[in-house]
Amino acid sequence: MRTLYHQPLNPFCRKVRILLAEKNLGFTIVEEPIEARREDFLRLNPAGEVPVLIDENGAVIPDSVAICEYLEECYAGVALLGATPVARAETRRLAQWFDDKFAREVTRNLVDEKIGKRLSGAGGPNSQAIRAGLANIDIHLSYICYLVERRNWLAGDEISLADIAAAAHLSCVDYLGDVPWENYQDAKNWYARIKSRPSMRALLADHIAGTPPPRHYANLDF
Amino acid sequence: MRTLYHQPLNPFCRKVRILLAEKNLGFTIVEEPIEARREDFLRLNPAGEVPVLIDENGAVIPDSVAICEYLEECYAGVALLGATPVARAETRRLAQWFDDKFAREVTRNLVDEKIGKRLSGAGGPNSQAIRAGLANIDIHLSYICYLVERRNWLAGDEISLADIAAAAHLSCVDYLGDVPWENYQDAKNWYARIKSRPSMRALLADHIAGTPPPRHYANLDF
Repeated sequence: MRTLYHQPLNPFCRKVRILLAEKNLGFTIVEEPIEARREDFLRLNPAGEVPVLIDENGAVIPDSVAICEYLEECYAGVALLGATPVARAETRRLAQWFDDKFAREVTRNLVDEKIGKRLSGAGGPNSQAIRAGLANIDIHLSYICYLVERRNWLAGDEISLADIAAAAHLSCVDYLGDVPWENYQDAKNWYARIKSRPSMRALLADHIAGTPPPRHYANLDF
Repeated sequence: MRTLYHQPLNPFCRKVRILLAEKNLGFTIVEEPIEARREDFLRLNPAGEVPVLIDENGAVIPDSVAICEYLEECYAGVALLGATPVARAETRRLAQWFDDKFAREVTRNLVDEKIGKRLSGAGGPNSQAIRAGLANIDIHLSYICYLVERRNWLAGDEISLADIAAAAHLSCVDYLGDVPWENYQDAKNWYARIKSRPSMRALLADHIAGTPPPRHYANLDF
């Protein structure tokens, strides 16, 4: 059986979970306490990080970029990168926008500070980081609006890894209730579309002990 | 003509420069003052970051991950990812190791603090960050030793994007004289092999105004 080692509110794990579901690939999910640095887990990924995928053939694939490219190469039936090199470059540019820029400017400042630090025992949240994260999210929501005014999905006509990466990060921030959807109607409509897909269901059912999500988190009509 | 917008001591730009040279693809290099946020440049990459590649066909490709995958797809003559999906996953895992983990733990703490901040006028270096960067580099050099004891190059028998990404980051830190090569002989031998390749020549000739490299930086026998 295909297995994914993950943590529930990790956007890189969520990206892989959505991608697997969009490709209709079954998998078992295992929550890995990465802080414990288990030896068995470090043998799978010396970096000590999630996600790590064990494919049905036994291949061990750590790192979300490596996993997504691997899945696209091996299971091309549902293609989620695009049809041409230039289209795939646009998808990868936007996936990296969220995995790198959005992660640095928003996800780490909000999710890592508010929840990650508590779960890992690394102390209280840094209020300056939280203020920065809340301020930074606007430019990203504006950019999503800009893109979906011009395209059906973020990278083009079809849903792609760009939408999946964006939804993975935004769903983590939305779990905290920190996405000002009401100010960005086009971004909200885009998120409503992706949120209603079966591939998002498992994520929307995640509950972190001690930190329940706001009521709108799992609502398709939010 | 193919054009690469870059900054000399940016490891992501260096990765693309080495890759282009390994693939024998000619290109003109343009140093982009990203702090100036030029409108013409933001039209090429709304993220405002280098590298950005303009290919001969006019395609505009920002982001080093997107650029490397694009080049591998379009110019497969010299393949630098690997022959099978699992081999390519291993290459990508290690390229991400350096672009993500090494960047976070070492490059940003040393190169951004010591040179980036001065060039961007962002104030003096943070001595705590520098101490962390110097402490963190050992685990990465140990890991390179571990890999090259078992393999010819980092990801397998052939040179790959994993070696290129590692050399891109290490060459930036080496420009500061902050790599303790003498303690890691196998890593040093690996770096000597990659340093002697023609694809590294242009990088080894880079000089940052006001911060000359140490004498060993460009020496093949260091």
